[in-house]
Amino acid sequence: MKNVVEPDLPTGDIEKLRKKIKACLDGRGGEMSARARAAELGEAYLVLNPLGRRRFLELLATDYDVDNDAVEAAIERRRASEGPEQLQLATNDLRRQLEPPRTRLLRQFNELREGVKFLVDLRAELMPWAREDPALAALDQDVFGLLASWFDIGFLDLQQITWRTPAALLEKLIEYEAVHAIRSWDDLKNRLGDDRCCYAFFHPRMPDEPLIFVEVALVNGISTNIHDLLDEQAPVINPRKADTAIFYSISNCQKGLAGVSFGNFLIKRVVRDLSARMPNLKTFSTLSPIPGFMRWLRTEARDADLSEREMRMLELLQPAEGEPDLLEIIRSGEPAEANNRNTLQGPLLKLCARYLTAAKKGRQALDRVAHFHLANGARIEQINWAADLSDKGLHQSAGMMVNYLYKLPDIEKNHESYSGSGGVAMSSAVRKLL
Amino acid sequence: MKNVVEPDLPTGDIEKLRKKIKACLDGRGGEMSARARAAELGEAYLVLNPLGRRRFLELLATDYDVDNDAVEAAIERRRASEGPEQLQLATNDLRRQLEPPRTRLLRQFNELREGVKFLVDLRAELMPWAREDPALAALDQDVFGLLASWFDIGFLDLQQITWRTPAALLEKLIEYEAVHAIRSWDDLKNRLGDDRCCYAFFHPRMPDEPLIFVEVALVNGISTNIHDLLDEQAPVINPRKADTAIFYSISNCQKGLAGVSFGNFLIKRVVRDLSARMPNLKTFSTLSPIPGFMRWLRTEARDADLSEREMRMLELLQPAEGEPDLLEIIRSGEPAEANNRNTLQGPLLKLCARYLTAAKKGRQALDRVAHFHLANGARIEQINWAADLSDKGLHQSAGMMVNYLYKLPDIEKNHESYSGSGGVAMSSAVRKLL
Amino acid sequence: MKNVVEPDLPTGDIEKLRKKIKACLDGRGGEMSARARAAELGEAYLVLNPLGRRRFLELLATDYDVDNDAVEAAIERRRASEGPEQLQLATNDLRRQLEPPRTRLLRQFNELREGVKFLVDLRAELMPWAREDPALAALDQDVFGLLASWFDIGFLDLQQITWRTPAALLEKLIEYEAVHAIRSWDDLKNRLGDDRCCYAFFHPRMPDEPLIFVEVALVNGISTNIHDLLDEQAPVINPRKADTAIFYSISNCQKGLAGVSFGNFLIKRVVRDLSARMPNLKTFSTLSPIPGFMRWLRTEARDADLSEREMRMLELLQPAEGEPDLLEIIRSGEPAEANNRNTLQGPLLKLCARYLTAAKKGRQALDRVAHFHLANGARIEQINWAADLSDKGLHQSAGMMVNYLYKLPDIEKNHESYSGSGGVAMSSAVRKLL
Amino acid sequence: MKNVVEPDLPTGDIEKLRKKIKACLDGRGGEMSARARAAELGEAYLVLNPLGRRRFLELLATDYDVDNDAVEAAIERRRASEGPEQLQLATNDLRRQLEPPRTRLLRQFNELREGVKFLVDLRAELMPWAREDPALAALDQDVFGLLASWFDIGFLDLQQITWRTPAALLEKLIEYEAVHAIRSWDDLKNRLGDDRCCYAFFHPRMPDEPLIFVEVALVNGISTNIHDLLDEQAPVINPRKADTAIFYSISNCQKGLAGVSFGNFLIKRVVRDLSARMPNLKTFSTLSPIPGFMRWLRTEARDADLSEREMRMLELLQPAEGEPDLLEIIRSGEPAEANNRNTLQGPLLKLCARYLTAAKKGRQALDRVAHFHLANGARIEQINWAADLSDKGLHQSAGMMVNYLYKLPDIEKNHESYSGSGGVAMSSAVRKLL
Repeated sequence: MKNVVEPDLPTGDIEKLRKKIKACLDGRGGEMSARARAAELGEAYLVLNPLGRRRFLELLATDYDVDNDAVEAAIERRRASEGPEQLQLATNDLRRQLEPPRTRLLRQFNELREGVKFLVDLRAELMPWAREDPALAALDQDVFGLLASWFDIGFLDLQQITWRTPAALLEKLIEYEAVHAIRSWDDLKNRLGDDRCCYAFFHPRMPDEPLIFVEVALVNGISTNIHDLLDEQAPVINPRKADTAIFYSISNCQKGLAGVSFGNFLIKRVVRDLSARMPNLKTFSTLSPIPGFMRWLRTEARDADLSEREMRMLELLQPAEGEPDLLEIIRSGEPAEANNRNTLQGPLLKLCARYLTAAKKGRQALDRVAHFHLANGARIEQINWAADLSDKGLHQSAGMMVNYLYKLPDIEKNHESYSGSGGVAMSSAVRKLL
Repeated sequence: MKNVVEPDLPTGDIEKLRKKIKACLDGRGGEMSARARAAELGEAYLVLNPLGRRRFLELLATDYDVDNDAVEAAIERRRASEGPEQLQLATNDLRRQLEPPRTRLLRQFNELREGVKFLVDLRAELMPWAREDPALAALDQDVFGLLASWFDIGFLDLQQITWRTPAALLEKLIEYEAVHAIRSWDDLKNRLGDDRCCYAFFHPRMPDEPLIFVEVALVNGISTNIHDLLDEQAPVINPRKADTAIFYSISNCQKGLAGVSFGNFLIKRVVRDLSARMPNLKTFSTLSPIPGFMRWLRTEARDADLSEREMRMLELLQPAEGEPDLLEIIRSGEPAEANNRNTLQGPLLKLCARYLTAAKKGRQALDRVAHFHLANGARIEQINWAADLSDKGLHQSAGMMVNYLYKLPDIEKNHESYSGSGGVAMSSAVRKLL
Repeated sequence: MKNVVEPDLPTGDIEKLRKKIKACLDGRGGEMSARARAAELGEAYLVLNPLGRRRFLELLATDYDVDNDAVEAAIERRRASEGPEQLQLATNDLRRQLEPPRTRLLRQFNELREGVKFLVDLRAELMPWAREDPALAALDQDVFGLLASWFDIGFLDLQQITWRTPAALLEKLIEYEAVHAIRSWDDLKNRLGDDRCCYAFFHPRMPDEPLIFVEVALVNGISTNIHDLLDEQAPVINPRKADTAIFYSISNCQKGLAGVSFGNFLIKRVVRDLSARMPNLKTFSTLSPIPGFMRWLRTEARDADLSEREMRMLELLQPAEGEPDLLEIIRSGEPAEANNRNTLQGPLLKLCARYLTAAKKGRQALDRVAHFHLANGARIEQINWAADLSDKGLHQSAGMMVNYLYKLPDIEKNHESYSGSGGVAMSSAVRKLL
Repeated sequence: MKNVVEPDLPTGDIEKLRKKIKACLDGRGGEMSARARAAELGEAYLVLNPLGRRRFLELLATDYDVDNDAVEAAIERRRASEGPEQLQLATNDLRRQLEPPRTRLLRQFNELREGVKFLVDLRAELMPWAREDPALAALDQDVFGLLASWFDIGFLDLQQITWRTPAALLEKLIEYEAVHAIRSWDDLKNRLGDDRCCYAFFHPRMPDEPLIFVEVALVNGISTNIHDLLDEQAPVINPRKADTAIFYSISNCQKGLAGVSFGNFLIKRVVRDLSARMPNLKTFSTLSPIPGFMRWLRTEARDADLSEREMRMLELLQPAEGEPDLLEIIRSGEPAEANNRNTLQGPLLKLCARYLTAAKKGRQALDRVAHFHLANGARIEQINWAADLSDKGLHQSAGMMVNYLYKLPDIEKNHESYSGSGGVAMSSAVRKLL
């Protein structure tokens, strides 16, 4: 949110604010007037500094929460009701009493010129504060509930993004890309080339803001490293002759929509759209990072049942002074180290397979990317050595990446198995590593 | 809803249906699969005949309602909760228990290609049945709640409709016009001429279906009869020189959205838009029907305190055989009758003023059009004699029409007075008639 | 052209006009100023009455024609030129001298807000006058040359017209339809149904004005009468299952573009577009009127070598008093006459086949519709009895219609044969009738 | 033109080519077939290498030129004609004979998918060859004539280009900018900021290719140096409060359209558009380079009547070894040199004023930018010292730039004076420098 030019909402102003909120919630002068006043409140919020905004939100959180006495009274009326009609009315009444009055104001903010974006951004600011304050957490719940209904998947547009898309929108891809940073407009252009497809979801009231986007490369055979895909000099493939679509980057764009799930729909809709447009595509797979592997290796792996060579890996994490550490060895291409590297490859691939398939948090995969794709019904297809030698790739996963395969006929079954019993679908190649 | 080609959902099929609904509500195979199944259910619904559809809805109404035991348990948990965090969680839980499971399915229907329209049309069919059956009434409440949130005014587009609008949409105006029927495409073209404006609200997921539309004529001075406005031969006025905008027809288009209020917003947004585009416009007024006047005259007026001449009016309603009745006299232009007509005009205008300002249902105006505009903050400006001599106009209101004036600075005040105490704003001319 | 509200350009004004034209042609103040003045001249033209406009055009025709002395001088300079470069310059110079100065003004009219339409409409008015006056004929040649280059087929857009097209454009179809009049908006809607396609050419500077349009029905088997196609109650065919596209109406829309040929391109582009979109379509044929048959029967047929039964036909054209004439017999369905009708059918079909294939004007088919399709490379496929029993159909062609078949592989060959030697392509069925 | 992958059109192929061209010109199989063949020829042309293309064009130039005997015969027929009608026909005939047959083929190339662009690019390649070969020069004349009629200003669209324009088009601005190179996408974004306007002309058949574009800055007071305008860190001005529009860059984009004049129209249309949209703008001026000043100073200035200090300038152009030259002194900011700089400023401004107003080629200003704006009716307003200290700016004009002022009421008068007698409009400030 831009426009932060004013102060911190001193105590004196809180009372004025309270009056304005009351006028919105009363609906004085009719709903249209109430909305106009809510819009003014929203404008006032936008010029506050963070401290002022937090005070504003705390006021909403504490003074406009559910009225417990009213709830109890409604419960009693409901219990006393006779016959289905009375029960229905009393149930409706109880529901109403359980909806905090502030919800009405949140909805009225929609009147702002960019009201939907306003609420999304408001939540992005609110979320960290909500972690520290139960009242703000309750407010966050209300905002989330509203956003979840506004951003129902049925209301979203799936749009393809190309080099012909307005620059004002393209620059947001650069800003929001969260997996493999876009280094320049040339890099971006390469990712929108003829053998690429980029898709995003949009909300009709936020047409300039992607919600989530995915970058797809059309290739032959499953890609085993990210460098080839990001190489601006690589030759462009005829998309009509590609047999495989590689989803190599998925980025959520709106912090304020955390918890509203789009990625699942995005991948499947894109698979459906690509299948229909290009019958030549037979395989749909990701090339994904393994963000939690190294952390797991440093901490929990130690407790696992490791072979001798695997233990040696762990020692390499903290080498003697003057010696290269594990990541340096992997990154480097020097002959002597290359030798080591080959020695490293086998055990690390095995450890990684174990991490992806067996490291759990409850029934869920510990790795958040693995969890996302397994819950979507994909299977672990292949773990790739030296697939991402960037700093980030090395520090996250010792340079390894993984392909999750989306095989349409198996998706429901995989999903059921994973969500039911935590069963992880994998290829025989991955199984062999275990 | 078209496509009704199949039968009445025999009892045997109900069980299959129950299974499919369960699969949707369980979310088996992931939300995307659940939605795909919901879409299939929706398609199945569309090919049922009315009896089959009613059975389908009754199943939803009875088997997927709120679980009372679960509600009671949640109430107890809430009462037993300690500290704000526990209370918050328990409150959320109670809310969830109060939401009937069928709501999830209703939301999933959004996956249908025209899912929003589907639910709107479903409710249009459900509403008459809901009047007879409390379970269906509760279902109707759920559908209404969902539609009210989907059709929040903040999501709607205000669009101008012109002669350049696609014919497929224009023919819907002909179909939906509810005040002064559009007789032909020439009539329609006249209502979209250079000295007219037509505006409608649209939902982004129903771009081909207007929700409500208003027809406006740009004129000089407040129009006093509808015939001039509908006359296709009347000369076209330069819209830049008009000083008055007359709202002469407002029609709701979607029966299934009954109870979701747009009219209030529509008029005020159009006033705002027209004011900005044409600063020459100084006066914004309706030319409205008085749909309940003659019914009131025939029934309740009898009990009121009437003058002798007014009593004479009532007698004319049931004249001796062979004599013209009141409406014939008004319609006719014969000299002798014209005499009578002049005699009629005075008392009928007085009665009409009394009807509009004093006939009430609780605090609301008895006349539904009057209630609508008074609640919006308009005032009764002028009652017009011989303003609509069509059959409908004569039978509804003895040919009279009324102007409601929207004077921006007074709207809030008028609204407050009316919604607070039922105070009716009126011009001095109308006051004189009382 | 609208706006004719002013007078007839009296002689006094001619001199002022001459001055203004001079200022345009001199380009005083730069080309942009000259164009602005030309636009003013155009506006002045639009408010003249027909007499005034004719005077305006006569002035252009006589005073701004080619300067013969300058042409002769340029010819001499060209003859005297030495070497290719001098010759080139002299040739350019001669070309310039042969272009009348008024052409520059005509081009400058493009500056008018609807400048292209202006010139098209100007020519529509000019053409009848040009038939009587050689100077105006020369002016018409200039206008035609300019329009022919502006309306080069490469600049035109082929657009499909559907029921979703703006009403303002659809009403022009009603106005311009020249073959089977569109009786109402319902008739029009039927012609834009799911089993129909309508295509038109547009110029980018006249986006609201179709240049030519064709109406196509998607059917099974070649249509043999127009009534089925125009029947609003006829069931709609699934267009994905149709095997035949029938071109049943082609109308030129702009009189001022007479002589600029679009129809040829229109049919072939539509065939190409339909073939690509609907591979189910195997046959492309017209169902066409035979506008000149009855006139030919009444006049020239008499001289031909007729059989006895054919002579009887001719007698029926002028029957004894009280007897039905030929057309009445065809139209009528009475048993006795039906008998006659069967008797008529054979000889009339033969005569019609003879007319279409052998009646010539030079090498061209005498029938203008036949000439159009034969020159395009179509063949005469089938002559249909009782195919158009409207007044127009009976009077033009005794109710018969003809199918011209567009078979892509034969089109070039047919065209060559016809344009070379006047050879008429026909099916064996038609050949049998001869 | 891309796609150059094939060879140089060996002599053997020339004969085949000749046949194909003949088939196009004959119109065999109808005009649509002829165009299809022309499109094939065009495709064949695109895969030739430069040598092959030149041979192709030479064939067109030599074998399909005007037939002199036919011209002479037409001249004789015209001389022998009697009466206006015969003369008219004969004149038309002579015109036709003067049009080389190849023109028809050039027109048919329009059938190519990007036919207009094809011809524009063809001419860009042809132009350098035409300078060496009179036959190719004649062909170039034909191509030019066709393009001049296709690109008549009346057919072009003026569009505003913003940061919301597709990136695919924006990158062409970077490519085509000819005055102040666009260094990066950030630089481009700065030039499309809220206080900037960029406009371009487009042809409806080349929607992705700007023809010419102008960059405008909205400022307060006339800008005196380019660095402020190109500074990405400079604060953005509220465009509603700016009083001056500065045209700081105009670039032609299509080499093949050399000689077709757009710049004149572009500036005036943009002035008109900006005036209408932002009544706050009172002054319209350029900030222009002076491309020929230094060359003139080095060569012709020497012959002029120079003061002593001015002679000193010339000496500084070739300083003694080890001494800074004129441009180094201007560029540098060292105190001692700053002194020199102040000494330089006076005489150089005077010399520049003399150059702009008095250095002529015939009646035209010697400086091509000066000629362009003076011919458009602008006046020389102000010469700015240290206005462009880039290498290019220093080498072209010793770092000076000039403002040409477009004062609407004076434009026609200035244009007339300049185009009539070469009179140069200037401000009194510039006059004082002389």
